Amino acid sequence: MAPRKLKIACAGLGRMGKRHALHFLNRTPRAELVAASTPDDEEIQWAKQHLEPYGVRLYKDYDEMLKQEGLQAVVIASVTTVHAEQAIKAIEANLHVLCEKPLSTSVEISQSVVDAAQKKPNLKVMCGFSRRFDDSYRDAFNKMDSGLIGRPSIFRSQTCDMLDPSGFFVAYAEFSGGIFVDCSIHDIDLALWFFGQDSRVKSVVSSGITAVQPELRKHKDMDNAVGIVEFYGGQLAYLFCSRMMAAGQDDATEIIGTSGKLTVNAQPQINLVNIYEPTGIRREIPPNYYGRFEQAFVNEANEFTAACLDDLKLPMKLTGAVQAVKIGCALQESLNSGKKIYFDEVGRRTEKASL
Amino acid sequence: MAPRKLKIACAGLGRMGKRHALHFLNRTPRAELVAASTPDDEEIQWAKQHLEPYGVRLYKDYDEMLKQEGLQAVVIASVTTVHAEQAIKAIEANLHVLCEKPLSTSVEISQSVVDAAQKKPNLKVMCGFSRRFDDSYRDAFNKMDSGLIGRPSIFRSQTCDMLDPSGFFVAYAEFSGGIFVDCSIHDIDLALWFFGQDSRVKSVVSSGITAVQPELRKHKDMDNAVGIVEFYGGQLAYLFCSRMMAAGQDDATEIIGTSGKLTVNAQPQINLVNIYEPTGIRREIPPNYYGRFEQAFVNEANEFTAACLDDLKLPMKLTGAVQAVKIGCALQESLNSGKKIYFDEVGRRTEKASL
Amino acid sequence: MAPRKLKIACAGLGRMGKRHALHFLNRTPRAELVAASTPDDEEIQWAKQHLEPYGVRLYKDYDEMLKQEGLQAVVIASVTTVHAEQAIKAIEANLHVLCEKPLSTSVEISQSVVDAAQKKPNLKVMCGFSRRFDDSYRDAFNKMDSGLIGRPSIFRSQTCDMLDPSGFFVAYAEFSGGIFVDCSIHDIDLALWFFGQDSRVKSVVSSGITAVQPELRKHKDMDNAVGIVEFYGGQLAYLFCSRMMAAGQDDATEIIGTSGKLTVNAQPQINLVNIYEPTGIRREIPPNYYGRFEQAFVNEANEFTAACLDDLKLPMKLTGAVQAVKIGCALQESLNSGKKIYFDEVGRRTEKASL
Amino acid sequence: MAPRKLKIACAGLGRMGKRHALHFLNRTPRAELVAASTPDDEEIQWAKQHLEPYGVRLYKDYDEMLKQEGLQAVVIASVTTVHAEQAIKAIEANLHVLCEKPLSTSVEISQSVVDAAQKKPNLKVMCGFSRRFDDSYRDAFNKMDSGLIGRPSIFRSQTCDMLDPSGFFVAYAEFSGGIFVDCSIHDIDLALWFFGQDSRVKSVVSSGITAVQPELRKHKDMDNAVGIVEFYGGQLAYLFCSRMMAAGQDDATEIIGTSGKLTVNAQPQINLVNIYEPTGIRREIPPNYYGRFEQAFVNEANEFTAACLDDLKLPMKLTGAVQAVKIGCALQESLNSGKKIYFDEVGRRTEKASL
Repeated sequence: MAPRKLKIACAGLGRMGKRHALHFLNRTPRAELVAASTPDDEEIQWAKQHLEPYGVRLYKDYDEMLKQEGLQAVVIASVTTVHAEQAIKAIEANLHVLCEKPLSTSVEISQSVVDAAQKKPNLKVMCGFSRRFDDSYRDAFNKMDSGLIGRPSIFRSQTCDMLDPSGFFVAYAEFSGGIFVDCSIHDIDLALWFFGQDSRVKSVVSSGITAVQPELRKHKDMDNAVGIVEFYGGQLAYLFCSRMMAAGQDDATEIIGTSGKLTVNAQPQINLVNIYEPTGIRREIPPNYYGRFEQAFVNEANEFTAACLDDLKLPMKLTGAVQAVKIGCALQESLNSGKKIYFDEVGRRTEKASL
Repeated sequence: MAPRKLKIACAGLGRMGKRHALHFLNRTPRAELVAASTPDDEEIQWAKQHLEPYGVRLYKDYDEMLKQEGLQAVVIASVTTVHAEQAIKAIEANLHVLCEKPLSTSVEISQSVVDAAQKKPNLKVMCGFSRRFDDSYRDAFNKMDSGLIGRPSIFRSQTCDMLDPSGFFVAYAEFSGGIFVDCSIHDIDLALWFFGQDSRVKSVVSSGITAVQPELRKHKDMDNAVGIVEFYGGQLAYLFCSRMMAAGQDDATEIIGTSGKLTVNAQPQINLVNIYEPTGIRREIPPNYYGRFEQAFVNEANEFTAACLDDLKLPMKLTGAVQAVKIGCALQESLNSGKKIYFDEVGRRTEKASL
Repeated sequence: MAPRKLKIACAGLGRMGKRHALHFLNRTPRAELVAASTPDDEEIQWAKQHLEPYGVRLYKDYDEMLKQEGLQAVVIASVTTVHAEQAIKAIEANLHVLCEKPLSTSVEISQSVVDAAQKKPNLKVMCGFSRRFDDSYRDAFNKMDSGLIGRPSIFRSQTCDMLDPSGFFVAYAEFSGGIFVDCSIHDIDLALWFFGQDSRVKSVVSSGITAVQPELRKHKDMDNAVGIVEFYGGQLAYLFCSRMMAAGQDDATEIIGTSGKLTVNAQPQINLVNIYEPTGIRREIPPNYYGRFEQAFVNEANEFTAACLDDLKLPMKLTGAVQAVKIGCALQESLNSGKKIYFDEVGRRTEKASL
Repeated sequence: MAPRKLKIACAGLGRMGKRHALHFLNRTPRAELVAASTPDDEEIQWAKQHLEPYGVRLYKDYDEMLKQEGLQAVVIASVTTVHAEQAIKAIEANLHVLCEKPLSTSVEISQSVVDAAQKKPNLKVMCGFSRRFDDSYRDAFNKMDSGLIGRPSIFRSQTCDMLDPSGFFVAYAEFSGGIFVDCSIHDIDLALWFFGQDSRVKSVVSSGITAVQPELRKHKDMDNAVGIVEFYGGQLAYLFCSRMMAAGQDDATEIIGTSGKLTVNAQPQINLVNIYEPTGIRREIPPNYYGRFEQAFVNEANEFTAACLDDLKLPMKLTGAVQAVKIGCALQESLNSGKKIYFDEVGRRTEKASL
């Protein structure tokens, strides 16, 4: 008898939705993509060509899709503004959920997904922080976890996108939650991973500039920003995010412990080729995050599938996704107020520095 | 209607056979692994667990497997000594063939596969030189092909395996054809790719040592060897092969043109992690060729499948595989005779240097 | 007639003083080291062996040395606490001055050196920020200056020393001015160089931890710290300093412009050797700042000498050294208060953020 | 009393002669450049400006210079064709000699210098193989010597110059001895250093092409060549030399031992800067050998000086320089004959391979 496969649907077929759909269709042996939904006509046309011939049923309405018989799980890759709502509906329909990050740009709404999930402890509900599934980050984590660098103390991480001169990000900034919530959320999640999921934030402060897209200011956003996150327990993270890179995606992380340091992607490269030419020696780097993290997304699909089928523990808690949004929102607020923000030991805002 | 898939069988389930079987089972969306054969009981046991539950029919006899109804293609990953025989049988059974390298350690036997294939021009018959499917090599080739480095003139390539102190390679050397036929065959194939498939060899010469495994001498083999291959037309390849690496797989290539140079993997690494510790900064490298070329093997499976289904041109000619064996055998001969070997412009051995 | 040489004396023969003395003695062809002073008996003994035989006159008293006939210049490498006093005395004695950084850990005292120097415009008075003389930093600056990366906008820099478990830095912290004044002063100076000497600071904020040396707290210092410096004009610098590195000196800088980025020493190494061994591939890095910047110190000696002899413009203004101390002190203050510090456009402290 | 200095003269003030003269004048504290000679009027003019003012006496005639009172040593940087003659004259005048490589392009003439030197065992006579004084090569040698990589077995080295489209090398080839004697002589010397000065060559074979300068053929030279050198004792060196590099000087070496590997300059770079721009990440490399080895030449001057003054052992034997020329000449011969050349265990040419 053939082993059973996870019947999964994909909500949203935009840039990332298409990728998730294809990963579950073609690169997740234990999953079967059975449905996909999108309100967008162009995306439906794409799906008729790339998904329907392989037995994937298409829906314009998300709610209708949830009713499909036998459906066991949903991957949510729609616009951020509906992530939480769709996730909660899926949970209520007793479906496992893999939701693209962030759950929401609001801490409260993010928390509502956690609340819904906690009522259905049998379901696997995961926010897709793809870097957790990247081989290099995992290798670094395992090395740190084995004690190789002593006690992790300083965490530096950056998410730096290639400049998109089309103005896309200016429009996008209206709903993205801002550069710290949209980009640095990954770095924040990594900090929580490396420092421990239960790390408690003590303060955040940030500064930013609009070097190339001053119009971002109307959405209270910047194109380059730096933030410092202090944790109770004597750990420090500092973050840089940018949408101005000339060469391509430049995401790097370093974890400094009391007896060593680990870096991930401190010397970016797209492959193993070097080009020697009259101007010197050159290597290329990935043009975007998918060029850097494609395999991590595929790993994510496969591990989420295995967790659902075999009732395994997910690699991260859903509560961490709320914590990440909370820190991201505070950094974004500091970016605009110019002020440092303090938290007490139980996570409430406070006015005074605790030294 | 669901798109049709290529029904393929896997011959041989040793180290590489298992990998091919799993690639076609799980990572080749347009293929369906329908059968596998091996005379080995342990391998059958493995297959009962990992293949049979997914609908793969198992055979102890290769010939029986070829009769399975609906079969369209075979991937041959059995011991080198039966590659050619199995390939020819498959061709005669009107099956597409993906055969692991080399076709044979004998030039004549290799040629017999080409002869068989030429009688069935509708079949796709390919010798699996995996590096042709590696993203970095392809990027380098495309850059060279676009003229980026001028006219390719010098080719340096090495295949360097990690030392296996178990003595495996001494036993293996009895049938491997020797280090130039077993290891450098990849580098030779790359040279023929980068210099052009119709490059004509003018001379070969080689030297070697047995630094760690003197017992190799009884099979006329060495553990480290260097060779020079001259081509008519003013191109030069030089090769290094070794089975003595301490750190892991160290396969590197450089192509030098009249106005630039390309390197592939001149700075090996297993991932993007660097470790800072009291002894300095360290990176790890893959322990073996599969750690380096896994994705290339998967690409190979997918592209072979597409070529069969859509009647596309294969990325390389089968005749090149014979040419590679011919050069590899000559290098191995020179290694033992200490003499340079010359060829005339139509490929026949000659006694005199042609300057 | 032999070309004239600059007659120079060295004040202080501690770790760095010995080096300066030897640089001027042996590696500065246009200078002649004619005197050296130190109150320390062990240092005098060293000088009797290494300097006196070459015609260098030794003094236990700095003031006496200043009276030596024919003396034209002094390099001051004594303890930080006497830098300013000795510099002012030398200026008043009409001597050119090369003073080790910082002028003082106090902004006011630093300014007093500038005031003294401004009364003697014919004298060359320079604070020795050695990185300004490093070939790599200069190459990066020139590339930026030529427009290669557009408008410089983000500056990241770190000074990271190897862990010294002897406890030296705890005692040292009493007088060093703290990690931002002692270590990051170099990074601050670089920021002022790359962003323009007249950049005006808008705010500073910092955070730190004592991961390995909690005793530093008694001197209001930390062993790892991160700071953000905002400038009027839309430029941002962020800094990391540490005394906890396992591998050695790890000083790196990146300058991000609107159309490109430059990094200096993002992949540290002591030389061009890589070691392949069973644990991977390793390279070593310099154990300390002198291992990284030795040649920069030699360049500094030679260029200071040329500036004195040929009345050339110094590569940087003395006022910048005061500005660097001012920023360093503010970062150190923020480290202890936990508060962000604001400046108005003319450099006065203010309570309000200016957005 | 001031310590005594070595009084040295420089013969030849061409490209490399000027550098040697300035190194001894300015960067060798224990030496005093007292004289220089050249028959070339332009070079005399240069010397009047750059040397004479510092007390260096100038000669148009080498023999006259040798008579200068008090002279203790000569650095010979004239054209290769007079190296040996000038060296012998200096030896006969009881002067220490630092002679640029090679002693001669003829083995016999090279040997005549050794013969002359052996009659004056009190003199220091050294052939300047600059790489022996390079920090990276020395670090690699010391690591190997300490046993870090086991028994050294395979040696790969290349000397690759940037393409000089002026045609200089075509004219130069008439007297250079050919690319193996001119360029690879350094790599051969390194092989003898790493494998042991008393290594005995067993065979050489080489191949070459003229990819960009076919006119070299008239001087029996090539612009790219590869050679294999076998040694008695089971060691193998393989060499590549080129005058066709696009990016700059690309000299790299690797030493493979039975338990590890060392590379020197496998990733060339001119400094620690990386440039991120729309085409990727770029680093520059030195334009020529002096850009790569400047500090090694300075070290050479200082250590030769110390050896003369303190009667220290030179870092290498003069006989090695003859051995290097012998191997270089044999490689050059093989390049033109297309034949492998064999040597017996006492170094005589033989017709038969010894296996």
